[in-house]
Amino acid sequence: MKTANKSIPGGVTAPRGFRVAAGSAGLKRDPSLPDLALLVSEAPAAAAAVFTRNRVQAAPLLVCREHLAGGRRVRAVVVNAGNANACTGGQGLADARETAAAVAQGLGVAAEEVLVASTGVIGVPLPMAKLRAGLAGLPAKLEQSVGADEAAARAIMTTDTFPKFGAVEVELNGVPVRVGGMAKGSGMIHPDLATMLAFLTTDADLPPAALDAAFREVVDRTFNAVTVDGDTSTNDFAVLLANGQAKNPPVTPGSPAYAAFVAALEEVAGKLARDIARDGEGATKLLTIEVVHAPSDGAARTIAKTVATSCLVKTAMFGEDPNWGRILAAAGRAPADFDPAKADVYLAGRLVARGGVAQPFDEAGLKAELGRREIAVRLDLNQGDGAATVWSCDLSYDYVRINGRYRT
Amino acid sequence: MKTANKSIPGGVTAPRGFRVAAGSAGLKRDPSLPDLALLVSEAPAAAAAVFTRNRVQAAPLLVCREHLAGGRRVRAVVVNAGNANACTGGQGLADARETAAAVAQGLGVAAEEVLVASTGVIGVPLPMAKLRAGLAGLPAKLEQSVGADEAAARAIMTTDTFPKFGAVEVELNGVPVRVGGMAKGSGMIHPDLATMLAFLTTDADLPPAALDAAFREVVDRTFNAVTVDGDTSTNDFAVLLANGQAKNPPVTPGSPAYAAFVAALEEVAGKLARDIARDGEGATKLLTIEVVHAPSDGAARTIAKTVATSCLVKTAMFGEDPNWGRILAAAGRAPADFDPAKADVYLAGRLVARGGVAQPFDEAGLKAELGRREIAVRLDLNQGDGAATVWSCDLSYDYVRINGRYRT
Repeated sequence: MKTANKSIPGGVTAPRGFRVAAGSAGLKRDPSLPDLALLVSEAPAAAAAVFTRNRVQAAPLLVCREHLAGGRRVRAVVVNAGNANACTGGQGLADARETAAAVAQGLGVAAEEVLVASTGVIGVPLPMAKLRAGLAGLPAKLEQSVGADEAAARAIMTTDTFPKFGAVEVELNGVPVRVGGMAKGSGMIHPDLATMLAFLTTDADLPPAALDAAFREVVDRTFNAVTVDGDTSTNDFAVLLANGQAKNPPVTPGSPAYAAFVAALEEVAGKLARDIARDGEGATKLLTIEVVHAPSDGAARTIAKTVATSCLVKTAMFGEDPNWGRILAAAGRAPADFDPAKADVYLAGRLVARGGVAQPFDEAGLKAELGRREIAVRLDLNQGDGAATVWSCDLSYDYVRINGRYRT
Repeated sequence: MKTANKSIPGGVTAPRGFRVAAGSAGLKRDPSLPDLALLVSEAPAAAAAVFTRNRVQAAPLLVCREHLAGGRRVRAVVVNAGNANACTGGQGLADARETAAAVAQGLGVAAEEVLVASTGVIGVPLPMAKLRAGLAGLPAKLEQSVGADEAAARAIMTTDTFPKFGAVEVELNGVPVRVGGMAKGSGMIHPDLATMLAFLTTDADLPPAALDAAFREVVDRTFNAVTVDGDTSTNDFAVLLANGQAKNPPVTPGSPAYAAFVAALEEVAGKLARDIARDGEGATKLLTIEVVHAPSDGAARTIAKTVATSCLVKTAMFGEDPNWGRILAAAGRAPADFDPAKADVYLAGRLVARGGVAQPFDEAGLKAELGRREIAVRLDLNQGDGAATVWSCDLSYDYVRINGRYRT
């Protein structure tokens, strides 16, 4: 079905019935920077959520799982940047619960209706006195505005260089509904059936099962198709809140309206995901790795992710070096069965290898193409109907600089 | 069994009956650098070999497989650096065969008795006129000396910064036998049941099956336990030549003499493997990742390799930043089943996390320890008897510089 999403200004409060606030608790290295965001739904919202598959799971994720159990509705999400509250043991769990309770008290809701997310350094206890003081000021600042949406997206950044948010409107059975979102990324980005921090909102009314199915489908094609450095975080968390304020007619899975909702959700999530890749730590380029005619979608995804995480491919793209042999070599080590002797390789739209063998190409022309901010890598395996697209970024001096001195 | 290896000078010609020569064919960016090595066994030698598991396999590897078929004995190995002869199609195969034939003619042996190995840029045809001229001068320069061993190890380098060679002597049933070797590494180093270029020699006399078993066992604990950048080469190749010139009594698998031979082989291969990690592209530090008390050896290996390839761990070590949370986070995303809540983490010998939770540590003292050239990471999972050790290196600005402009 051809969908007609309309881009609209703003982020998480573009859908009706949501308000957001940003604030500061002094958790970042520069304590004057904003580091807190509070997202509130006026009505209890249905929630669909995915969590990191890392075996090491941060305390706030454990608390979110508890709070979402049994399909409990959500009233608020509080996010802090600057401290991940991971590997912090029993104290970390107590701190995450206290954070939810403090927000709940300020809003007059139950603690179990509040979700908590954290991002930042691992293994350092949350400075709760600072955090309490910062949280106290948030409820009075809640508002519905594009400015507030941007301020919240900015507050949750760590090494991100620009805030990531967006929104669209789409008609479901003749009624306009909106989807908004914000996310942060930058480092330790390699989601595995879960994602970095991403917060999506909608005023659409969908049954919880349909909401969950739509979210998982979209997350798989967007946030799960992004990689910055191959490192899966302990704190990855993505949540979609749906408060039903658009009062659209019922939407059933498989219907055109459901497809329209998925397309709207995918447009917002896809924009945020590509922004995360584009703004990867130290990145100068967005890389789009497309694998087509693979033996299966799974094989295509595996090969695309292996190319997308290859340090040698990423440094070559940083150096604007048409060293396509590294692309095929990375594909060749992917744990997927395919015949490299059938593979054609395209770099920035130009054929550089056919049937696994070098083709003559205009080296100067291709090098010039690689000077652009977005580079497309396409592997046509010529051996099936599987396809996948993954987004990544180059590996630069700045990645090393940022991560060589993140903590101290 | 406690073995008594004695270090001796030299490399591939330390064992009796081997000669080596280095030369230049102008294949490197600086055409005055040596780029050819020829290793010759006076007597036909039994060979044990392992090849890259990358699906993309360079032409010389296909030729080596043909030549080694049926347990054929080997008289010579010719190696060129500067051009990988990979992704070069039918022309590449013809060039590799012609290389073997040219060497065979110069030595008066059969082409099938010559192995060929190449390393360098992918997807560029070998400049055969230059190569032929370079090969012609090699036979006259063959000699048995420490100087020749070093010259050969230097000729096969690409981005390596020092030549890698070594030798030991050990008694098998009262008869001294020697094992020697040379290797090159530096980039695209992440062997998968095969290895980078490594050439080992011995004058020991072992039945082919025992030789093969010993080599595979040792390769698994040495070259296969090294990673520089997670990228498995199209040209990885390791071979052990045994010419029997030590005239030792028969060695049967499982005997003390077999164990002594394995220990001697492991000492040489282990030194070369650690040298490859230490000299990884841009590396400033050798990282030793040890995982103990894991549910199984396989789980320990998987976790150690995941930590060893983590860009975030490697950049933190470059920055001498005791950011141990990244170590546990990398372990947590490894595809191995374990409980992070039981894991203790040691960095440079100091306990930084117990049972998955941060422990207080002397930050300044630990930071000073991280200033050393060798850093030990130890994960004690406290949940079984599995163990593994993997060697890696840090990720520096120079890795990006070297790989951002390798080809052009």
